[in-house]
Amino acid sequence: MFRFEITHRDSGTSARRGVLHTAHGDVETPVFMPVATAGTVKALQHEWLEQLDTRIILANTYHLFLRPGHDRVARLGGLHRFMSWDRAILTDSGGYQVFSHRELRRIDEEGVHFRSHLDGSAHFLTPESVIDIQNALGSDIAMVFDECTPYPCSHVDAEKSMELSMRWARRCLERWRTTDDGARALFGIVQGSVFRELRRRSVDALVDLDFPGMAIGGLSVGEPKDEMFEVLEATAPLLPSDRPRYLMGVGTPEDLIRAVALGVDMFDCVLPTRNARNGCLFTSRGRILIRNAAYAEDQSPLDPDCACPTCRRYSRAYLRHLYLAGEHLSAILNTLHNVSFYLDMMRKIREFIAFNSYQKLLESMEKSPD
Amino acid sequence: MFRFEITHRDSGTSARRGVLHTAHGDVETPVFMPVATAGTVKALQHEWLEQLDTRIILANTYHLFLRPGHDRVARLGGLHRFMSWDRAILTDSGGYQVFSHRELRRIDEEGVHFRSHLDGSAHFLTPESVIDIQNALGSDIAMVFDECTPYPCSHVDAEKSMELSMRWARRCLERWRTTDDGARALFGIVQGSVFRELRRRSVDALVDLDFPGMAIGGLSVGEPKDEMFEVLEATAPLLPSDRPRYLMGVGTPEDLIRAVALGVDMFDCVLPTRNARNGCLFTSRGRILIRNAAYAEDQSPLDPDCACPTCRRYSRAYLRHLYLAGEHLSAILNTLHNVSFYLDMMRKIREFIAFNSYQKLLESMEKSPD
Repeated sequence: MFRFEITHRDSGTSARRGVLHTAHGDVETPVFMPVATAGTVKALQHEWLEQLDTRIILANTYHLFLRPGHDRVARLGGLHRFMSWDRAILTDSGGYQVFSHRELRRIDEEGVHFRSHLDGSAHFLTPESVIDIQNALGSDIAMVFDECTPYPCSHVDAEKSMELSMRWARRCLERWRTTDDGARALFGIVQGSVFRELRRRSVDALVDLDFPGMAIGGLSVGEPKDEMFEVLEATAPLLPSDRPRYLMGVGTPEDLIRAVALGVDMFDCVLPTRNARNGCLFTSRGRILIRNAAYAEDQSPLDPDCACPTCRRYSRAYLRHLYLAGEHLSAILNTLHNVSFYLDMMRKIREFIAFNSYQKLLESMEKSPD
Repeated sequence: MFRFEITHRDSGTSARRGVLHTAHGDVETPVFMPVATAGTVKALQHEWLEQLDTRIILANTYHLFLRPGHDRVARLGGLHRFMSWDRAILTDSGGYQVFSHRELRRIDEEGVHFRSHLDGSAHFLTPESVIDIQNALGSDIAMVFDECTPYPCSHVDAEKSMELSMRWARRCLERWRTTDDGARALFGIVQGSVFRELRRRSVDALVDLDFPGMAIGGLSVGEPKDEMFEVLEATAPLLPSDRPRYLMGVGTPEDLIRAVALGVDMFDCVLPTRNARNGCLFTSRGRILIRNAAYAEDQSPLDPDCACPTCRRYSRAYLRHLYLAGEHLSAILNTLHNVSFYLDMMRKIREFIAFNSYQKLLESMEKSPD
């Protein structure tokens, strides 16, 4: 049975520590979910993910729907078996991807018509079909199909969009209930752009539907950072305190630390993996662009405070060389480090919450160089 | 001290089994050396190479000379330390790479003028500078600078080219002796194209110079397979029986099995790694093009007789998906398998020699599907 348990509450902030119990193992929260877009965390072998104690990854419904196709994945035993990953998987609903290709789609009440970014083929997704697809994939946590409101957006457009998403959330849940056995969970997604009153109405609609988990969507879509945190600060306290809260598509290490203080439990973002492939590396002393000439003969590890396999073995000079030579090993070692950095940070976050001293982590961050 | 020891001789063929003792560990022969062009076996982490019991890799002098530069590598402690690899390394001399960019180079008695394929910058390599570069890299086995005679080639051109290579071999050795302490080895390279008499004269010249190891170069450069084996069959017996014999740039699994029967001890080739990235996989039942639609829903492992990490965990269907999606993990898992396949084959080769039954391996190959 899917279940969320809160084990610690920090008294100085709204941070909480807990466990998501899933059919594919327990996931300690706050958690960062590495993004496995097409059924692989780019450039990272499953063995390393396991060694880093990754308990849950995020896969993209949109990408898997188009290739290799959810029917095929279902015939191959579901996504866990297909990709040979027996820990938890969350699938997004594909909404974000569909709506990010604006010129390729058309929305109506029923659903979204769009064209594949791969081959231009025409497709139609509805709240019901998105649930069917996620059921075929067999993810442990599925997400409702929503319209990801762009930024900036007028109040009237944001309201219409949020209301459509709420009607779709209800349709998703109805479809979900026809097969739901309690082993997996469907999360609702709060929309409403930067308008607090719309966010509140969205939360109310989802609370009425009694989702076992709640996501905050439509943030980190181009709005200023302060505005994102204002919306988050206003929205998070409205969410049922006993349900996991998932801030979608966020963010930098600093974003995660701040959002946890506001009561967020779950995160995903392509930042650590995409930045890794671009040679942008997170370290305890700030970010490093590994192509920088300063590292050409730097024998020190990427991050002297990191114990990941990259930092234990390789020098900045070698990592720079691999990057400039365009070697696969550059993407591999950089990704290994960045994902390790994020997961280490989440461990630290969970420890500070357990010691009821999250405020100290916030303060130390404010003094840090990055 | 560098030393070659023969431990077994097969009585039915010319196959021999032995050990190369190097300053970076023992290497059992016959051996296949994975190619680490720019200081990394493409798409393969060192950890996996070690897990596959890779004892020696080949790095390219030409590539490392251009980027990151041998002086830089020397300042960083040599190639072993730079790339964090403490097992044996053989460096080629760069001759093959320089000569393969024909429009970019000009040869005279002194050496080769050429332009970098990276940035067009002008460079001049001589037999002496190539030794200096390999000394800076600190490889366990260095190679003389030779002209790799193209195919086809007239007798008169092949003779001139071979004679130049032999004069350069002498110059390489003279430079080598100024710093040689016996810990590392310089190998000579037999040239002479497909002309047996030229090959014999080349061997004689190198034997006079008393190289601790002998390579056969200028094969697998476009000549028909039968012609390659005729030259090899005529040349190998001329080589000093107590020195390691290295057939450069060869080849397919079948080539290696046949060449071992003629007395070859060492091989290198980009085939397993390059093919892996192109989705061409070696298996005990023949080659597989993983993009083939036949594998779209094939849940079986790539090679049911293989125990490599790829075959133990992943299905052909997943490997096909990764290949079509252009994922890094495709190159990673395919390379891991192909290199594992080659190293397993070399283990089998060494076992058959130890059991004095190499003929049986040759016969089983003739019956095999690929």
